[in-house]
Amino acid sequence: MIRQIPSSLLEGAVEELAKLPGIGERTAMRLALFLLKQDDDFVNDFTGAINRMKKEVRYCKICNNISDSEVCSVCSDRNRDASIICVVENIKDVMAIEATMQYNGVYHVLGGLVSPMDGIGPSDLFIESLVTRVASGTVKEVILALSSTMEGDTTNFYLYRKLSGYDIKITTLARGISVGDELEYTDEVTLGRSLLNRVAFDNNI
Amino acid sequence: MIRQIPSSLLEGAVEELAKLPGIGERTAMRLALFLLKQDDDFVNDFTGAINRMKKEVRYCKICNNISDSEVCSVCSDRNRDASIICVVENIKDVMAIEATMQYNGVYHVLGGLVSPMDGIGPSDLFIESLVTRVASGTVKEVILALSSTMEGDTTNFYLYRKLSGYDIKITTLARGISVGDELEYTDEVTLGRSLLNRVAFDNNI
Repeated sequence: MIRQIPSSLLEGAVEELAKLPGIGERTAMRLALFLLKQDDDFVNDFTGAINRMKKEVRYCKICNNISDSEVCSVCSDRNRDASIICVVENIKDVMAIEATMQYNGVYHVLGGLVSPMDGIGPSDLFIESLVTRVASGTVKEVILALSSTMEGDTTNFYLYRKLSGYDIKITTLARGISVGDELEYTDEVTLGRSLLNRVAFDNNI
Repeated sequence: MIRQIPSSLLEGAVEELAKLPGIGERTAMRLALFLLKQDDDFVNDFTGAINRMKKEVRYCKICNNISDSEVCSVCSDRNRDASIICVVENIKDVMAIEATMQYNGVYHVLGGLVSPMDGIGPSDLFIESLVTRVASGTVKEVILALSSTMEGDTTNFYLYRKLSGYDIKITTLARGISVGDELEYTDEVTLGRSLLNRVAFDNNI
């Protein structure tokens, strides 16, 4: 169906839309024809919002979180506990943790994970600024909230070595069976970890 | 997860992306963060192609098909048989029929179907220009290739009345069991129609 596009302008838009993750050529065609059918204002608002985001979005100078201003809404919130820093890979993780409503500390967004395979070393990430924050002396705890992949473990190890000289608590997220999951269907590594890291019963009530 | 967007610029882009058909808020967030991660050129190309399509795309002055120039690639192709006009609802149908590689005539895109419920009357569609084309005397056959819905049938009926005064053949698409389908699972209306409109066996070889 896609081979027969009668307009190179439509074809160009379809090609661009198909570059989005999870959008195939057929969906891209549907989206392009949808946009073509809308009035000019709709399309201007659509492309304008994307352009504006790309051009004007800023990153917090303290924690590297996405922000509209120099300091993000978390770092500038005086009700948050700035002595606890949760280290995450990216802003998606910040949003995921914020959505739990269980965390009242601040963040530090690394912007990636150490991955020699992809040529990403510690100097490509916002690690020095984390060390500077810790070195300032006001931090009591650093929570390493990275994914439990090879890259996450490598980064955890590197951060641990960088930070272990300071008088702070270094913690990591609890790994275990998901809430609501059945033992029977849990993979053995996770089940084993949640046995090793078992907690006092009254913690879970 | 979406409630906690730390940037109104990101939020704005997510809202716009979520207006696309079939794109929910979570997918919109994924697309927005993807766009945010690409370099400036990528995003400029992306929004530029959409803006350009919206601003510069033209519609063929003969058949109302989408086109980059005054006359579309089908109408300007001298190998196509201009005496057969296939009447379709929109340009998606043109592309669908072109993809079959079974049609060598030209098209006429109505731009919609007569739908009193939605306030769309014959005057809102490109019907007059079709009548003018037929009246010019070079047309031998008009194929009504509209969907078999109430709106399609209404439009067919209106077109038939408008065109039946001219010395042309008026045909419509064959309805029947899809190629590869089993009788057992075909709805009774379709099966009934394909019985009524049965064709000589050698036509199907």
